[in-house]
Parts: sequence; structure tokens; C-alpha cells
Amino acid sequence: MKYTIALLAGDGIGPEVINEAVKVSDAIAKKFNHEIIWTPALTGACAIDAVGVPYPDETHEICMKADAVLFGAVGHPKFDNDPSAPVRPEQGLLLMRKKLGLFANVRPTFTFPSLIDNSPLKRERIEGTDLVFLRELTGGIYFGEKGRLDGGETAYDTCTYTRVEVQRLAKKGFELAMTRTKKLCCVDKANVLETSRLWRETVQAMEKDYPEVTVSYEFVDAVAMRLVQWPNSYDVLITENLFGDILTDEASVISGSMGLMPSASVGEHTSLYEPIHGSYPQATGLNIANPLATILSAAMMFEDAFGLKEEAATIRAAVNKSLEQGIITEDLATKDAKTYKTSEVGDWLVANL
Amino acid sequence: MKYTIALLAGDGIGPEVINEAVKVSDAIAKKFNHEIIWTPALTGACAIDAVGVPYPDETHEICMKADAVLFGAVGHPKFDNDPSAPVRPEQGLLLMRKKLGLFANVRPTFTFPSLIDNSPLKRERIEGTDLVFLRELTGGIYFGEKGRLDGGETAYDTCTYTRVEVQRLAKKGFELAMTRTKKLCCVDKANVLETSRLWRETVQAMEKDYPEVTVSYEFVDAVAMRLVQWPNSYDVLITENLFGDILTDEASVISGSMGLMPSASVGEHTSLYEPIHGSYPQATGLNIANPLATILSAAMMFEDAFGLKEEAATIRAAVNKSLEQGIITEDLATKDAKTYKTSEVGDWLVANL
Ligand SMILES: CC(C)[C@H](C(=O)O)[C@@H](O)C(=O)O
Ligand SMILES: CC(C)[C@H](C(=O)O)[C@@H](O)C(=O)O
Repeated sequence: MKYTIALLAGDGIGPEVINEAVKVSDAIAKKFNHEIIWTPALTGACAIDAVGVPYPDETHEICMKADAVLFGAVGHPKFDNDPSAPVRPEQGLLLMRKKLGLFANVRPTFTFPSLIDNSPLKRERIEGTDLVFLRELTGGIYFGEKGRLDGGETAYDTCTYTRVEVQRLAKKGFELAMTRTKKLCCVDKANVLETSRLWRETVQAMEKDYPEVTVSYEFVDAVAMRLVQWPNSYDVLITENLFGDILTDEASVISGSMGLMPSASVGEHTSLYEPIHGSYPQATGLNIANPLATILSAAMMFEDAFGLKEEAATIRAAVNKSLEQGIITEDLATKDAKTYKTSEVGDWLVANL
Repeated sequence: MKYTIALLAGDGIGPEVINEAVKVSDAIAKKFNHEIIWTPALTGACAIDAVGVPYPDETHEICMKADAVLFGAVGHPKFDNDPSAPVRPEQGLLLMRKKLGLFANVRPTFTFPSLIDNSPLKRERIEGTDLVFLRELTGGIYFGEKGRLDGGETAYDTCTYTRVEVQRLAKKGFELAMTRTKKLCCVDKANVLETSRLWRETVQAMEKDYPEVTVSYEFVDAVAMRLVQWPNSYDVLITENLFGDILTDEASVISGSMGLMPSASVGEHTSLYEPIHGSYPQATGLNIANPLATILSAAMMFEDAFGLKEEAATIRAAVNKSLEQGIITEDLATKDAKTYKTSEVGDWLVANL
């Protein structure tokens, strides 16, 4: 088969980790007789520098025409100190999510046996952790009306959700739960927020369509606690945009393998795959960034966007083998273990697929 | 001196833990020649049962007349499954905060050396943790306009902040930082929210009045991560209501001493002291709940509301001694350590002040 993949490398270490994912993907394609056409496009700070906006129309066209999008990371320190600057990389991210209709962000958190001791949490608390957050990504307070009143003295943000928005996200949650241990947790703040009450009543009404799924409803503050206490008690969690932003980042730390966690954003027009980490400007150009999160994101792409399970499994098996054999970048090294460069890890994987 | 303290025991284990705090407070008063007048009042589920509302006017009058409020916990399972029920204990809590003008919730997280291994986090990650959250408590999305549109199909919540609201909270943050290690972290989501940008610009403008304080600005998602990674890197954190709700609960788990953490809510008219834990309905009447969080809340009250440092220190010293000597309730017990009843812990403290 032939696949067109939009390649949005972005800023910082983005191009370096994307490069390794391309190498590994090409090797997989060759092995399984597929053809991949990569269509690179600008996004983030580099797009602002080049054309003045973080998500150019041309990039959007390229994404819409592709079978999937592989994304690196965006962000540059020159934009960091002024969150009210008129043009910023994050705006491109939000615009891209909205225009591509990527309403569900899929963020798995799982443990790698060989890395479990990297976690800040004790081994017995995290062993067996294998959870997935489905974060709503194109609604809520991120996209509601916001502004100033009283000559700038009062600020407001509006969180809005429609039943349809909740249903389409929850549907993905129920479906995902059906492929796993059939446990779904709806995370909300229904004791305070009207939008949360809409979430809860909508999910409750859908329960009858998935009689095998056990659904729990937990408040966001309680989940923030239990995630640290017993992450392995969760399976699939669904939640709104802002809660998802906070909780998925919290969860990412738990497994001790934050630099390895992939993610997908899926929805109406296409799907996008990206590592959960940022653009780590300090490491730019040093060939030290860990490419595995991006490579595992490519594996998610093969499996979920193209339905190529074996190809995905082959990538994951090679990644596991590389970890077991200590072919690791410096972020994963304990004590004076030998470490490898970004490109060396990619090369090793290509040679060991 | 003579102090009038409004006593809001609330629901579940509330009355049991409050009872021990009263015993210890009375013993301290006797030792230091103070007089305490306790004025009990209803709040929570028990107030709904008795008079139909969770925060009766009479209770409010009693709180307004008192020098401070000591609070147990509210909540009853019969209200749990229906967050849209017309009358619920939480509404009383929010109304009380608003009417008493308790705009700053002070939530310390610190470690007890003898309990450090109870933490889900590894010892080396949490040793030395001693941070305080100041959570804004009477504004934001909790109190903004909310409702339904389109015949119930769309829900919305509004988050609003004024510069004055931010200033008064931030002022307490700067002042608190001055009494500690002079590090202040402002937690926001200024890359997305207009209210966060108001927070950030307001705090930035105040920096010049506290030249000795080092201020950092971090996004809420990043703090949710770093709290689990390196909680001991924080000192004072200030944040808005909803972020504070989530992050203070997350932080409470870190020290492994969640059942021991006190809190204060301060502001315009009075101050209120309460354990951070809830009403644990399952333990009601069993005399097994840990009274230490409430007793340490009483210590905060002596120190902060009445300026009685030595009295507070005496309570804390006795609590530390009780922990060292293993006079603990069953929640703190590891393996087959001997445990004590709620009232026995209180009795021991009274005898050992
Ligand atoms: C950069 C920021 C706008 C973004 C978000 O809040 O969604 C990021 O934190 C993320 O989670 O992808
Ligand atoms: C019960 C609930 C309304 C309350 C809150 O969200 O403020 C609680 O979680 C708290 O933190 O005191």
C-alpha cells in the first residue's frame, strides 16, 4: 500500500526525533512492501519565522491531503516570557487541532519493565500500570469566548460543551474500553461545574449501549490524587480539555518513561501522531534527544491510522529490545551506563527490526 | 485571653475528629491560661437534614461573631450519586467560603520523618518537602455564571477574575514567601487563558514591591508533573481556585501524610481551620479516624488567628512525639503495629502536652 504522511517536524529537537521516526518508518515500509510519501510542512516557531504564522494555510492543506500527520514538537524560548504576545507557537497548535477536527487526544501511560525504577513512584505502586486518557481536544475553555472588561481590570474565559461534543468523545472512550479491560472512568467536577454535569449525564445515558463496560465517575481532584497513589487501578479515562491537559501530564511522570510516551489525536478529518514531550530547546542540534516517543507514535500511526498491526508490533518489539540491550539515550541512563546518540538509536532500530 | 471559636463539626467522622481537637485545645488553653468558648453550629448534610439548607443563616451568624472557625468535614453518600440534586452539602461549603470572604486557602504539604515511607513516592524524591499552596477560594469558575442553552444541549461555565482579587491573594503569597525561603511560584495557564494572563501580569507588577522574593511562573500542566517529580523544589505556590483544587489534592498525597495535613482559609471577615480530608462516611462512629489533621489545624488556628506561637508549637511537639512513639490510628499503621482509637490519640496528646 501507498501512504502519504504529512511531516510536521516543528521546533527544537522536533526535526531530530522526527528524522529517526522517518528512518524507522521507511525501513518498516520496505520490509512490509509499502510505499510512504512524506510531505514536510512548517509549523510552530519555525513557521512564524518563515511566514509569520504558526500554522500556515499551506501546512493545513498538506495535512488535509495526507493519510496521517506525524508531528514533532513546537515551541521556542523566545516566545516563552510573554504569553500575551500577538503570535505564538501554541496558537498554531490550537488552530491545527480545531481545523483538523482532532477532538480526541489519546494518551497512553504504561510501564517498561526495564525502566520501572526510573519512576519517582515506588515500584509496587506502578507495576502493571496501563491506562489511556482520552482528552477532549477541540472544546471547553480553550476555545470558548475570552476577553477583558472594565478597561482590562476583569478577565474572563468561558468553558462551553455541547452534548454532541461529549458524545463523540465518550463513544471513543466506550469503544476503547471494549478492546481493553472494559473499565471506563469519566473525570469531571460535576459537584461544581455545569459543563461537568452535562458530561456526566451524557455519559450516563450512553451506558446502556455498552452494558459490558463498568463506568465510574470521579472528581478531577480525587483523580489527581489516585493517579499518584494507585495508577494501576485505572484503565480508560475520559475527560474534558483542561482537566485532560493537567492529568495527562501528571500521569506521564508516573511510569518513569515520560520520554518514551507516544500520543495520537484523532477526529473528523485526519489523525495526528506525536511524542508527548516538548521541543527541549536546550538540546537542539546536540543529537541527544530520545527518539523513542516519536518512533512509538509512528507505531501508533501504523496500527491505528493504517490498520497495520504487524508493522506496529515490529516497531514496538525492536524498541523493547533496544531498551533491554541498553541502546539508550542519555536521559534514560542510570549511573555510568553507556549511552547512544539520537541517530544511533534510530540506526540500531533500523538494523534490528 | 478569651477566644470564641465557632465549631462546625459537620458530617461523617467530622464530629469525632473535632472532638479530639476540642480536647487538645482546651488542655492547651488551661496550660496557658486562656479561656475558650466553643459555639457549635450546623453545616453540611446534617444541616440539610435538620433545617433544609447546608449553611444556615444561624451558622453564618455564629461564624461571623467568633474569633475563628474550626471545621470538621462535610458530605454524605446519599448526596454523592446526584451532583445535580437541588440541595447538596458542597453548596454549603461554597456559600460559606463566599459569605465569610475566605479568599485564600492555605494548604501546607510537609513530611514527617517517621512517616516518610508511607508515601507512594520514593524517599529521595520527597525528603525535605515543605511547600504551601495558596489557593484562591472565592472566585474563578466556581462562582462565575453557569447554565444551559439550546434546551439543555449546551452547558457553560464562566471563569472570571478581577485584578483586585488576584492582588489580595498574591499579596498573601508574597508575604508568606518573605517568612520562608523567599521563593514564589505563580501557577497559571497563561498560554491559553485570559484570566491566567491577568494573573500573571498582576503578579509581575507586584514583584517590585518584594525585591527579595524570587518569582517563577509555571504552567499548571508542568506543575502537575513537577509536583510528583521534585516536590521539594517548591516553596510557596499561588494559584486560582480550580487549579488549586486539583494541585493541592495531588500535593497532599506526596508526603504520605495525607491524613495529617491541616489547612486554613483566611480572608475578609474571619478565618477557618480544617483538616484536608473528607467526611469518610464508612468510618463514621467507629472511633478509628485520625484526629491529627484536625488537631494540627487547631495549632494553625492558635498561631495564625490568635498569634499564640508557643501554644501552637506545644501542640505540634506533642503530635511529633505521638508519631515517634507509635501512638497512631490504624490508617498510619504498617504491618502489625499496635494502633490506637481516635479518642485514645486525643487522650495521649492531652496527657503529653
Ligand atoms: C502548549 C499548550 C497550549 C498545550 C495545551 O495546553 O493543550 C500543551 O500543554 C499540550 O498539552 O499539548
Ligand atoms: C467539595 C468541593 C466543592 C470542594 C472544592 O472543589 O473546593 C473540595 O474539593 C475542596 O477542595 O474543598
